[in-house]
Amino acid sequence: MSVSAINPNPAPTPSIAPPDIVRCAYMELIVTDLAKSRAFYVDVLGLHITEEDDDAIYLRSFEEFIHHNLVLRKGPIAAVASFAYRVRTPEDVDVAEAYYKEMGCRTERRSGGFTKGVGDSVRVEDPLGFPYEFFYHVDHVERLTQRYDLYSAGELVRLDHFNQVTPDVPRGRAYLEDLGFRVSEDIKDSDGVTYAAWMHRKQTVHDTALTGGDGPRMHHVAFATHEKHNIIQICDKMGALRISDRIERGPGRHGVSNAFYLYILDPDDHRIEIYTQDYYTGDPDNPTVTWDVHDNQRRDWWGNAVVPSWYTEASLVLDLDGNPQPLTKRTDSSEMEVTIGADGFSYTREPGEKGGEKGFKVGSQL
Amino acid sequence: MSVSAINPNPAPTPSIAPPDIVRCAYMELIVTDLAKSRAFYVDVLGLHITEEDDDAIYLRSFEEFIHHNLVLRKGPIAAVASFAYRVRTPEDVDVAEAYYKEMGCRTERRSGGFTKGVGDSVRVEDPLGFPYEFFYHVDHVERLTQRYDLYSAGELVRLDHFNQVTPDVPRGRAYLEDLGFRVSEDIKDSDGVTYAAWMHRKQTVHDTALTGGDGPRMHHVAFATHEKHNIIQICDKMGALRISDRIERGPGRHGVSNAFYLYILDPDDHRIEIYTQDYYTGDPDNPTVTWDVHDNQRRDWWGNAVVPSWYTEASLVLDLDGNPQPLTKRTDSSEMEVTIGADGFSYTREPGEKGGEKGFKVGSQL
Amino acid sequence: MSVSAINPNPAPTPSIAPPDIVRCAYMELIVTDLAKSRAFYVDVLGLHITEEDDDAIYLRSFEEFIHHNLVLRKGPIAAVASFAYRVRTPEDVDVAEAYYKEMGCRTERRSGGFTKGVGDSVRVEDPLGFPYEFFYHVDHVERLTQRYDLYSAGELVRLDHFNQVTPDVPRGRAYLEDLGFRVSEDIKDSDGVTYAAWMHRKQTVHDTALTGGDGPRMHHVAFATHEKHNIIQICDKMGALRISDRIERGPGRHGVSNAFYLYILDPDDHRIEIYTQDYYTGDPDNPTVTWDVHDNQRRDWWGNAVVPSWYTEASLVLDLDGNPQPLTKRTDSSEMEVTIGADGFSYTREPGEKGGEKGFKVGSQL
Amino acid sequence: MSVSAINPNPAPTPSIAPPDIVRCAYMELIVTDLAKSRAFYVDVLGLHITEEDDDAIYLRSFEEFIHHNLVLRKGPIAAVASFAYRVRTPEDVDVAEAYYKEMGCRTERRSGGFTKGVGDSVRVEDPLGFPYEFFYHVDHVERLTQRYDLYSAGELVRLDHFNQVTPDVPRGRAYLEDLGFRVSEDIKDSDGVTYAAWMHRKQTVHDTALTGGDGPRMHHVAFATHEKHNIIQICDKMGALRISDRIERGPGRHGVSNAFYLYILDPDDHRIEIYTQDYYTGDPDNPTVTWDVHDNQRRDWWGNAVVPSWYTEASLVLDLDGNPQPLTKRTDSSEMEVTIGADGFSYTREPGEKGGEKGFKVGSQL
Repeated sequence: MSVSAINPNPAPTPSIAPPDIVRCAYMELIVTDLAKSRAFYVDVLGLHITEEDDDAIYLRSFEEFIHHNLVLRKGPIAAVASFAYRVRTPEDVDVAEAYYKEMGCRTERRSGGFTKGVGDSVRVEDPLGFPYEFFYHVDHVERLTQRYDLYSAGELVRLDHFNQVTPDVPRGRAYLEDLGFRVSEDIKDSDGVTYAAWMHRKQTVHDTALTGGDGPRMHHVAFATHEKHNIIQICDKMGALRISDRIERGPGRHGVSNAFYLYILDPDDHRIEIYTQDYYTGDPDNPTVTWDVHDNQRRDWWGNAVVPSWYTEASLVLDLDGNPQPLTKRTDSSEMEVTIGADGFSYTREPGEKGGEKGFKVGSQL
Repeated sequence: MSVSAINPNPAPTPSIAPPDIVRCAYMELIVTDLAKSRAFYVDVLGLHITEEDDDAIYLRSFEEFIHHNLVLRKGPIAAVASFAYRVRTPEDVDVAEAYYKEMGCRTERRSGGFTKGVGDSVRVEDPLGFPYEFFYHVDHVERLTQRYDLYSAGELVRLDHFNQVTPDVPRGRAYLEDLGFRVSEDIKDSDGVTYAAWMHRKQTVHDTALTGGDGPRMHHVAFATHEKHNIIQICDKMGALRISDRIERGPGRHGVSNAFYLYILDPDDHRIEIYTQDYYTGDPDNPTVTWDVHDNQRRDWWGNAVVPSWYTEASLVLDLDGNPQPLTKRTDSSEMEVTIGADGFSYTREPGEKGGEKGFKVGSQL
Repeated sequence: MSVSAINPNPAPTPSIAPPDIVRCAYMELIVTDLAKSRAFYVDVLGLHITEEDDDAIYLRSFEEFIHHNLVLRKGPIAAVASFAYRVRTPEDVDVAEAYYKEMGCRTERRSGGFTKGVGDSVRVEDPLGFPYEFFYHVDHVERLTQRYDLYSAGELVRLDHFNQVTPDVPRGRAYLEDLGFRVSEDIKDSDGVTYAAWMHRKQTVHDTALTGGDGPRMHHVAFATHEKHNIIQICDKMGALRISDRIERGPGRHGVSNAFYLYILDPDDHRIEIYTQDYYTGDPDNPTVTWDVHDNQRRDWWGNAVVPSWYTEASLVLDLDGNPQPLTKRTDSSEMEVTIGADGFSYTREPGEKGGEKGFKVGSQL
Repeated sequence: MSVSAINPNPAPTPSIAPPDIVRCAYMELIVTDLAKSRAFYVDVLGLHITEEDDDAIYLRSFEEFIHHNLVLRKGPIAAVASFAYRVRTPEDVDVAEAYYKEMGCRTERRSGGFTKGVGDSVRVEDPLGFPYEFFYHVDHVERLTQRYDLYSAGELVRLDHFNQVTPDVPRGRAYLEDLGFRVSEDIKDSDGVTYAAWMHRKQTVHDTALTGGDGPRMHHVAFATHEKHNIIQICDKMGALRISDRIERGPGRHGVSNAFYLYILDPDDHRIEIYTQDYYTGDPDNPTVTWDVHDNQRRDWWGNAVVPSWYTEASLVLDLDGNPQPLTKRTDSSEMEVTIGADGFSYTREPGEKGGEKGFKVGSQL
């Protein structure tokens, strides 16, 4: 599919086929206090340490067999150093390098990898300004799948997806579709404005999603649990630790993706989603679901309010020199402005009926 | 215990022992459209019909063996006709009648009962203005406990408690303690103002609770589920039916009671709580838990906001002639005013630290 | 109710009222290797240590506020030193002492208690040969109810009940009914033989149960979890620890009590049940459920086989000198013999139809 | 990988690439009493009817968007008419036809499909004697994913996999690997005998598995639920309906696949598995897990016995004329014989220790 009619993609599709991306594999987060971040990701969330040193901690989820899903690296400012994807073959790393070079993107190749545990990799500054990484070679480590002696009540079992903030969603969507991602769901309005899109390589709702806003920024990184009660336990534990103010939004049921979700904030305000039970998307003609931006069940199936910070706050991303990428303002309508507060509206049933007008929903007061 | 130092109870404790109350047993709700209410309680919530006619529907929960836990009766205005308690012996009905007569309360005795399925009963207008009922004789019906062929994904298995709005909580508490209720938890401030109290006869956190506000009014009636996912399913189903605007608050974890909860509204705006997993309170010295009104985890352990309507809205109650009781204004501080909005404050950790000051919690914006 | 018609009770009901028993409170287990037992109860099951020394470990469940629910005491042979019940007032300890003295039972009173954390207590050798204890005074400790930072995936939240093996169930039942227990469920056959009975003081299905067999012996002690998945996690963890051979029976759904259950064995073969979601029994006329011994859903609602060891194995109990009580053989029919193997039968539907005769159920082969 | 060293594959790999199989899509079951089967699959299991007539019922799971996952067709003898796989493109149907023709297999092509809702398809009698079907064109129907108003407590949300009985597992494995399946797990012994293998196309543990035994026969077809409690509800409901004798095995936790499982039997003794929570297998180097046949946690992580019928009973499969395929005896060792009963053994810990020898596990008695 080409959406260039909607918005010309300044990064023309390369003449060569894109690399065969398997899945989102890990994110490298720059954190300002490694000890505080360790307390959050290891003591509170229970991610498993594969390896750590004075500069970085390598963490993996319960059912992972590659070296890590998350790297916490000490740095001067909180940001994201890499969104890393695994490709199908070693040759796909060469393909990725050539693919981005042809788009005129800056790339950096390291045969020894950019992090411990990972081999030959290429990092690029992609057309949207995000630091993408592609690798095949990676150390295999113990898959803890049946280590129930280590299974916590709120266990995180898989890395599920990334979420990126970009000003021009159709442009980003066209770029990612060219790269081989397929759209599972999106949010639009009757004027054809696209507010967000969910895109996958593995057979889930997404490996990454695009959220309209000033970008490039990282909106969140998501880990999956087995069941809903595991997510509730994470909330209960944060209450017990008296850090409930770090619960930003949820838990709730997403309209988009149908997953049960929770958003929490790490010590640097990097946003983490805990997520479970979306659906299979592996068929070639998997139906794409489009939501009306004014449907107040699109982001929370129960109609609970999306807090403003969830729309406005996100993490900076770094260029290949480790400097924050400058932000480009979103010029299309803002989902927050068109849906909540004085100027916006949402409906529970069809527009006009305004099932949501009663005063009791927090959010109506925003 | 006597709290008369805090607030003299105009209804002096009778000279006789109070009736031996076993538990809250059923509520009689006046609804304005029986068909709409049936759709809500039977089709959406799945309560089981014991009996119905053109004027009333008698409903019970899955594990109940008495005739009903809820009566829906058609009437001109939405209200509550009775908060009914079961007593231990037939003689306790005589005791209850005498007890309230000695307090100077209006009483009405009906050997045939006030509803189908219930025998000899007394209804009273209690010192707080609520229509209380006491009965022992009741028809036994099939207990559906193992009828898993009828078990819905959001099954309501027990009536758990009532919640009443009254202006003077200490006065109401003293009256109910005299009546044999014991306090499991309460909410106070450093000035000694009591905002709410939870009181039980059966071995759970409460059979009824008192919430400070203009009263007498009925704040909610609560049904229990087996597990947390049952409550999530009720939210998911209301979303599917496009009535998410009838989800007022939650789901969440209570601070008080530790139960997992949800508040929804019926077609007449009667508030229903779905509730699961509080704790055992049967020991004579069960510790009473007192919460600081400024602790923002007291009503939601995750610090999620209590919506204003939850504080302000409640159902009228009827006198023995079926007329709405006039309301008395609360003169003590309002929990809503002291905790949210411009004039109030809440804390996540200890006061001063203001863990909750960050902008992202809905509620801070209220 | 009197069952003396069925079987004369050699211990005549005392002339005085029995003590007011609140609930089963703790069991004192004699274990032969304290370190091994600690590994099982603390490291595997996650019970919380209130106090420990070289001779004993005092453990409590997550929602308990009294000093302990289980005492592990080092001793020469595996046995049970006490089935301890909490009574409503200090005076009830005097009543208990007098009550058993009048029955001609040996009693021992200790104002300082028999274990740490417990005050004035009396222990008796009851008419069935069991070491019963009654106490009121007990140290209060931190109730961990909202300490979700300590909440394990298989958390045990309450002590639920004891289960005792005795040869003459009707005699034992009459004795316990005189003591104030009420029968919630039982298992009988058409000849009037009683195979087991469940008896409660608190508002659950039981505080203790009587299982027909050579006695006096302790069949099991049961702890409750919040939800079913917590029990599954205990199985999964025992699999991960390669001690699945210590899972004796289950998990499954009981017919009797309707609870979801699991039976496991500690290092001394003391049997522990993990149990969740039985039902409220607090009403004075709570219906008693009687099961046919030949109904193969009575002990497992899914018709899964009861393993022979579950019928035949149990723990010795001690007299007040610490010597094992001699066993009296059961003379009534054996539930195992009448229900499984060559001579017994069970049915899935009504007798005759023999829905269970197909070959695929393990147990048919026993 | 080639296993021809283990066992020469009489069906040489075709010269052309195999069809690109997406996933197992549906099974066509021949049932002898359509009304009885409808009661089982619709009333008990809650599968959703897409379409039905006097000869057949077309059923789908909750999250399915293609016409059906299961066809129940009335016929003279209980059997399986087709194991149907969806392929990636219309052309893959041509490829499949050519691929099997080159192997010398009988094929039948129908441009209008073999069942309602499905278009151009090819059915083949594969080298192992199974009726395989390949199709791309299929009607899209309402995906019920968020129709929580239709969500039952034991809802089946996806078709997960098939399981086939074949005498020579290595031969079957080689054939399926040539066809593009990848092995996630298998069961072997120290002599190199393979007892079973799990093979996938979609990113789960399997789309089909091979179980060693007299074949070709269909061992079971499996549907997935969201959570473990959904499976427990199915057991509870079957108990309530007094058909617990149709629960053959489980519920339990598999060693292989790590899924929580249940096996039940339909009115014709076709075996259905209910299955949840295996793991992601989409990476090109997903580690293959090999289990020792003597490890008694391989098929049940909790060491619970596999009932003999589970090893011995299976459904016949039909040739393209609708006649049952003759069975070929397995000549390799039988998993049942080497693991249970007088001649077999299993271990809980390492061999020799024989942690399982204690008498309490049913199965030891078999």
